[in-house]
Amino acid sequence: MQKGIIVGTLVSTRKQEALVGSKFMEVQLIKNNQPTKEFIIAVDSVGAGIGETVLLTMGSSARMALQNHNAPVDAVIVGIVD
Amino acid sequence: MQKGIIVGTLVSTRKQEALVGSKFMEVQLIKNNQPTKEFIIAVDSVGAGIGETVLLTMGSSARMALQNHNAPVDAVIVGIVD
Amino acid sequence: MQKGIIVGTLVSTRKQEALVGSKFMEVQLIKNNQPTKEFIIAVDSVGAGIGETVLLTMGSSARMALQNHNAPVDAVIVGIVD
Amino acid sequence: MQKGIIVGTLVSTRKQEALVGSKFMEVQLIKNNQPTKEFIIAVDSVGAGIGETVLLTMGSSARMALQNHNAPVDAVIVGIVD
Amino acid sequence: MQKGIIVGTLVSTRKQEALVGSKFMEVQLIKNNQPTKEFIIAVDSVGAGIGETVLLTMGSSARMALQNHNAPVDAVIVGIVD
Repeated sequence: MQKGIIVGTLVSTRKQEALVGSKFMEVQLIKNNQPTKEFIIAVDSVGAGIGETVLLTMGSSARMALQNHNAPVDAVIVGIVD
Repeated sequence: MQKGIIVGTLVSTRKQEALVGSKFMEVQLIKNNQPTKEFIIAVDSVGAGIGETVLLTMGSSARMALQNHNAPVDAVIVGIVD
Repeated sequence: MQKGIIVGTLVSTRKQEALVGSKFMEVQLIKNNQPTKEFIIAVDSVGAGIGETVLLTMGSSARMALQNHNAPVDAVIVGIVD
Repeated sequence: MQKGIIVGTLVSTRKQEALVGSKFMEVQLIKNNQPTKEFIIAVDSVGAGIGETVLLTMGSSARMALQNHNAPVDAVIVGIVD
Repeated sequence: MQKGIIVGTLVSTRKQEALVGSKFMEVQLIKNNQPTKEFIIAVDSVGAGIGETVLLTMGSSARMALQNHNAPVDAVIVGIVD
């Protein structure tokens, strides 16, 4: 997984049916407690908000965090870091 | 997922049977609202056009955006960013 | 797989149900016996501790190291390097 | 997917049983119509030859381009770019 | 796939049950016939030794090279380059 900070949201009106209702967050990855130049758009699954440090799961494993295991999603926020 | 801007199309007459009818777009990735030097060829699933900012899903999750979950595709445009 | 050294732990009280009980470690990747600037958050499956050199499996294969093959996890510590 | 140009072939006499008969090509990735320093070894599925510009699918999706969906292959040439 | 040269072995006494008996090799990736600064730990499936140039499969496809398709392994040596 990766650690990151939520820096924004993303709105997409025209999207895949299976993504309707998903909350998209732009997350800046953090390595060794330093923000990086790497950004990921992730679906939130834990009620996280802008400015919070979160845990991201990517790839096929990200789908396992959603009710629909066949959603076309490759990055999900799975935890909020204390 | 990644955010990107569609910069072109790609035509392939000789291709895998399962790709016939797919619309291939060249997408320049955007990070932190800045275009990067990273480019991906993605199948369009939402009717996006050149110049539009889109949301890309990659890896096995990309296949979930297509009717044929076994298509040999690793990147799909799943939304148009507002 | 990748080799890495455990440099810290990560605590997340608010997380996906399927992650409850998981021990998250921050791992600094090692290439050619040199520490790199790449860091991964991985679930421990072998009782590893801070300062130990470990073997990391990533992607969907990481899930195979856990009892729950559907856990939303993309990196697992699968061995301690002698 | 990625665009690339075939720059060579690779011969492996001692290999996994499931790879016997596969044609391995060395492909130099192209981004924004510029050759990059990134190279991939891919199995050809469309009869492509050295010097041709091709479309590459990677990861588990690559296997979907082969008759044997369980072949230990992570990159396949799925089309020839016009 | 990637081409690489085996530069060492890795021993792990304390590891996942499913990895017992696996031979771990440290492989330096080769691009365009030049060694890179990228290293991968891979399970050998073809009887390769130190100094040999090999073909590496990564990700879920790597598991397809092993008898146990559920082994927590993300990189396997699938061929020896002639």
